[in-house]
Amino acid sequence: MITHSSQIKNFTIIGSGTLGARIGLRAALSGFKVVLYDIHESSFTRAKKDFQRIKILLNRKGELSPERFDELTESIIYTTDINLACRNTDFISESVLEDVQLKKEVWKKIGDLAPAHSILTTNTSYLLPSWFAKESGASERFCAFHFHDVFTARVVDIMPHPGTDPEIIEVLRDVGKQLHQIPVVIKKETQGYIFNKMFGSILMTAGSMWANGIASVEDIDRSWMGNYGMRIGPFGMMDEVGIDTVFHVAKGMDVNTDPVFVKKIEEMINNGSLGIKTGKGFYNYPHPQYKNANFLS
Amino acid sequence: MITHSSQIKNFTIIGSGTLGARIGLRAALSGFKVVLYDIHESSFTRAKKDFQRIKILLNRKGELSPERFDELTESIIYTTDINLACRNTDFISESVLEDVQLKKEVWKKIGDLAPAHSILTTNTSYLLPSWFAKESGASERFCAFHFHDVFTARVVDIMPHPGTDPEIIEVLRDVGKQLHQIPVVIKKETQGYIFNKMFGSILMTAGSMWANGIASVEDIDRSWMGNYGMRIGPFGMMDEVGIDTVFHVAKGMDVNTDPVFVKKIEEMINNGSLGIKTGKGFYNYPHPQYKNANFLS
Repeated sequence: MITHSSQIKNFTIIGSGTLGARIGLRAALSGFKVVLYDIHESSFTRAKKDFQRIKILLNRKGELSPERFDELTESIIYTTDINLACRNTDFISESVLEDVQLKKEVWKKIGDLAPAHSILTTNTSYLLPSWFAKESGASERFCAFHFHDVFTARVVDIMPHPGTDPEIIEVLRDVGKQLHQIPVVIKKETQGYIFNKMFGSILMTAGSMWANGIASVEDIDRSWMGNYGMRIGPFGMMDEVGIDTVFHVAKGMDVNTDPVFVKKIEEMINNGSLGIKTGKGFYNYPHPQYKNANFLS
Repeated sequence: MITHSSQIKNFTIIGSGTLGARIGLRAALSGFKVVLYDIHESSFTRAKKDFQRIKILLNRKGELSPERFDELTESIIYTTDINLACRNTDFISESVLEDVQLKKEVWKKIGDLAPAHSILTTNTSYLLPSWFAKESGASERFCAFHFHDVFTARVVDIMPHPGTDPEIIEVLRDVGKQLHQIPVVIKKETQGYIFNKMFGSILMTAGSMWANGIASVEDIDRSWMGNYGMRIGPFGMMDEVGIDTVFHVAKGMDVNTDPVFVKKIEEMINNGSLGIKTGKGFYNYPHPQYKNANFLS
């Protein structure tokens, strides 16, 4: 079993959606040899487009030249062959859809294929690692390792399940740092991680005030923006993450969810008001009121 | 009754603690004629010291020259005579201690003294205006008008009780803008206003995770700071506002308060760990760990 991050050379991503692909890219930029696996070839086309955007971003930030970016990423392997993806790996990061049954099936497969020394991680947002540990066939090497955005929000959550070998946690902390993330450790399994719980509680509190007619969307956002010195308030943020996602967060939270708010966002979803992605949510896009220069005056 | 902000010339502060005095200062800087009242002469000495700090701050920000500051504030009247304070005023802002009985007594007195046209406001943080409206003897002219910091956080909450004349709300919105604040309207009485409810919900969620051993103070703060791009996390903020205040917020919140967390902060208070003001809270001061350059790396 891998007990030090220096033993990790080969890095495998299972599920190359936006976040999965970005984790793989970040690993390649940190010097790991990376294999991106997905069931759909089209994921790779999308991933490569996203990588070009990040290349520009990193160059603009002065973090990495386009030449060095190309050099570090040219050896990334893109494959729809899970055998190839898992055969010779030291570290697996799984980012398939948040579907319990699907993840169980995927981990059963990975468990059969992955080398006996490899570290196995899931990037799930709201599910618990213990739900899949048994399927992986290697509970002691299995842990949640959860990213937020990789290139802008830089936190990685390390959440072991009761059977995770404590040595793995230190390895993951090191790997997190090598991936230019801020590692935080969740000592006990809990749905939603640290930031998501706090972020969710603001959204639910804001949503409940609005749904109960205590204040308008605009005044609640003004209050947050004006006192907290931020350029966006909770309703602007909900439009950004998507009202459908907010709905799932609300349903998944164990406290602090107001059924009056849940009912209201369910109506919004039925009306196609999903936020920025449909042009309409709590605000209208592409020019939401809260971005007006005089919104706070 | 005053129905337009242009009718307001004379501004009275009842209770010249830090916030009350700052509201008065802000009113003087906006061109109102201001009387600061307090039961203790010593409040005025403290207020004048604070005003000197704000004079420096506003000059540094390029908002106001020291000369203009002196000119606008030289006519402020400081008095311990409540008759003088209420005799000839158009607008009263009350900021006495958050004690229901005390506020009732004070509003009985103000009601007897204040002119029949004046607007009467309370700057209470967690109490409801309807609790004092009757004592004021002028329910229709009575409203909560709640400031956060006045010079840094610039939001003012307007919270009518069911008997407040709706015309007053528009006057208060104008006055708020004249005082360089961002007015937000709370349509229904609720304890804690908009920002305080959202801010409180983050603190309670963070506190509950820590109290239940889910993550460390440092990792919870890292998660907030790293994802939200802020220089302080919830535990740093609790040390800033004071653990005793957090305790009162926790007791006053209607949802989302974890008794395990409340018990833990009660122990901290008994140990004299009140945050920055006692040099010890979740962190040690004057050099808390979260301010180290490498805290997020």
